[in-house]
Amino acid sequence: MVRHEVRLAGFGGQGIIMSGYILGKAAALYDGKDAVFSQSYGPEARGGACAAEVVIDGDQVDYPVLTRPDILVLMSQEAAQKYSADMADDAIVLIDEDLVTTGTGKTVRGAPTTRIAEDMGRRIVANIAMLGFLTGATSVVSRRAMEEAIKSTVPEKTIPLNLNAFNAGFEYGERSRP
Amino acid sequence: MVRHEVRLAGFGGQGIIMSGYILGKAAALYDGKDAVFSQSYGPEARGGACAAEVVIDGDQVDYPVLTRPDILVLMSQEAAQKYSADMADDAIVLIDEDLVTTGTGKTVRGAPTTRIAEDMGRRIVANIAMLGFLTGATSVVSRRAMEEAIKSTVPEKTIPLNLNAFNAGFEYGERSRP
Repeated sequence: MVRHEVRLAGFGGQGIIMSGYILGKAAALYDGKDAVFSQSYGPEARGGACAAEVVIDGDQVDYPVLTRPDILVLMSQEAAQKYSADMADDAIVLIDEDLVTTGTGKTVRGAPTTRIAEDMGRRIVANIAMLGFLTGATSVVSRRAMEEAIKSTVPEKTIPLNLNAFNAGFEYGERSRP
Repeated sequence: MVRHEVRLAGFGGQGIIMSGYILGKAAALYDGKDAVFSQSYGPEARGGACAAEVVIDGDQVDYPVLTRPDILVLMSQEAAQKYSADMADDAIVLIDEDLVTTGTGKTVRGAPTTRIAEDMGRRIVANIAMLGFLTGATSVVSRRAMEEAIKSTVPEKTIPLNLNAFNAGFEYGERSRP
């Protein structure tokens, strides 16, 4: 069983922390894996950038703290600069392509997640569009599990909006697969 | 140095996870303590309830996982039922007094945190009012550190609103001290 270390980073108000919570919940409650969502507060957390870290393992998570992320999700340029340093050599980097430009040689895939949300009239669901992109672009979590985790977390009246954002992001993710 | 284990629980959409993130950030970056924000996904996370867990220690946090919370923050009745089982004997329980009724014999203190936020026209800052209540009612984190953590986390244009909610909650907290 593969261990995945996922870091999601952006700026305050984008729902980064909530998206990490939902990802871990999907893996743990609905995919039957072990997941730990944790937060280390380094000096890079000063200022507008924030990050959430999720470790997912098919077996028990032995070491709950993220060491070198193999999946990095970047929702702002400041976050890209602060949180890209220690990623694994074969890391997959997923970016909001309108908000982030990266100069690294890693595998970078982009989707307009904030624009997807704005087109729906609710910028606040950009994080859920990004979770859709992540789900479509990688095999870290199943689509069904993510949908269940979203439905059991967001306020009930916003479930259709959130699932629409998730599905739109998912389509970008599927198309980005090699 | 005292180790504190704080659990914040409520329903999805109340900003519970974000409030845990801010509490840990205040302790780690602005009070100079060690803090770990983590999440375990037990079966109680199914449905509408969610919880965030923060361990704060003046020394290094040896064991990052919460064992028996000594501070329990409850923002919904469902969360109160799901997340109250394993608290410490001398735990302090802080509740939104309009949303939660508890039958336990623990030290319970209430504030109308959601009503405070609604009176400001933005129910979304109820979690920040609750952080104010927590800061005023306990010595787990300093007022200055919390204000800095809020200012560096929320979107810039919402800082005054959030600090107003924090201050209103703080006054309830101070008045609730024995």
